[in-house]
Amino acid sequence: MKKKPLILVTNDDGITAPGIITLVDIMKSIGDVIVVAPDSPQSGMGHAITLDSTLHIEKINIKESNYEAFSCSGTPADCVKIAISEILNRQPDLVVSGINHGSNSSINVIYSGTMSAAIEAGIEGIPAIGFSLLDYSWNANFEHCKNYVKNIAQNVLKNGLTEGTVLNVNIPNSEKHDIKGVKICRQAKANWKEEFDKRQTPQGKDYYWLTGTFENQDKGEDTDEWALENGYISVVPVQFDLTAHHSIQKLNTWDFNE
Amino acid sequence: MKKKPLILVTNDDGITAPGIITLVDIMKSIGDVIVVAPDSPQSGMGHAITLDSTLHIEKINIKESNYEAFSCSGTPADCVKIAISEILNRQPDLVVSGINHGSNSSINVIYSGTMSAAIEAGIEGIPAIGFSLLDYSWNANFEHCKNYVKNIAQNVLKNGLTEGTVLNVNIPNSEKHDIKGVKICRQAKANWKEEFDKRQTPQGKDYYWLTGTFENQDKGEDTDEWALENGYISVVPVQFDLTAHHSIQKLNTWDFNE
Repeated sequence: MKKKPLILVTNDDGITAPGIITLVDIMKSIGDVIVVAPDSPQSGMGHAITLDSTLHIEKINIKESNYEAFSCSGTPADCVKIAISEILNRQPDLVVSGINHGSNSSINVIYSGTMSAAIEAGIEGIPAIGFSLLDYSWNANFEHCKNYVKNIAQNVLKNGLTEGTVLNVNIPNSEKHDIKGVKICRQAKANWKEEFDKRQTPQGKDYYWLTGTFENQDKGEDTDEWALENGYISVVPVQFDLTAHHSIQKLNTWDFNE
Repeated sequence: MKKKPLILVTNDDGITAPGIITLVDIMKSIGDVIVVAPDSPQSGMGHAITLDSTLHIEKINIKESNYEAFSCSGTPADCVKIAISEILNRQPDLVVSGINHGSNSSINVIYSGTMSAAIEAGIEGIPAIGFSLLDYSWNANFEHCKNYVKNIAQNVLKNGLTEGTVLNVNIPNSEKHDIKGVKICRQAKANWKEEFDKRQTPQGKDYYWLTGTFENQDKGEDTDEWALENGYISVVPVQFDLTAHHSIQKLNTWDFNE
């Protein structure tokens, strides 16, 4: 009998989030699952790692479960590092992160704790996928995407990924769209326009909440934003070699000895 | 008379770090400087932003200074966002981050708070550079690189950067090398091999410190690691479109309807 794949599941919304519970359920139908996820929400953590404080792990007791779960005091990237180095007996065959409550499409990939976990796994040479649903609600409906999430994970296990890449998968909100299918995309050129919400403490001192509006300048039909707006699951292959190779030639014309 | 460029200076080691004080001194010889930097060290923060707590700004009194400085309770990316949105009267002509006490070459760019500030500026369409010195010491010597830092900043102001890119500049440790010059490079393929330092609390509970060994598998003479090992300042153009375009064709052959 062929050995079942070992699948590490993590996220950035914390180990109690409905999104990760859904992802665990789906992955249990494919392989042996182990969960190592943050003990509290870590949204917007980007690729942060914990250098200036200690890391703590707790084994979680899950009733009637056939998998092990650990909460970790660190960031999503920490979870992947400590899982591989200290918790797992062997390198996992797949790392999946999510399902995030909220979008990580286009520029959001940069700020995303969900994707940082997947990227960390990719850096360690392990096939990895980050899944995100375009619904921030804790009561989000994941039913419409379960078969797709399973299918994408099975494809990665079967076909592997190009070296140095991981997948950023975003899923339309079920209230807005029936899913039409899966589209391979590029990251749309978009950004957030900041709008700081300035308030005052009871003592009269200013403070701020970071808020903003998402602005997509990129109408390309090959982008993740287009796919999601049109009812498709977007799959963007993401790399962590950030070199802008197309810019090297121009920089080589500069004079650095002036 | 031509208007002086407005230069925003930030970092991830915190506003009191010798590296940022050096960078401010250099930038004052080129333009009008304003500093918005974290009020405490933020190393390893990656591209984290503050979504779940409030942000606070303090104006810093600097004796005999001809520039303004503000400390911010947030991450390096937060500093850039709040500077542009709430503190500056106009968009800066250049954002510089650093000089970091420690390397941000090769894969370290992913974990780097220094580079996240530069990348955040790039996302907002502002030319930006992250500077890092390969010396973690607070007493690091910056003398040997001052002219190069100035020259690189002047080149960016004069020539601009390719859209969607910022510069990741790393500088050899003066104790190891005389600087031979500047080399335009690609990011070396390298990673950290984790070694968690497992300890026990006085109450007998396990906890961990994240440590590791840097492993460079990439001996290419066009890499930042090669340049630094051979006494050159490395300049890598960095992009925040993470799409692995070379992987799209392969993914399009997958069957997502099995």
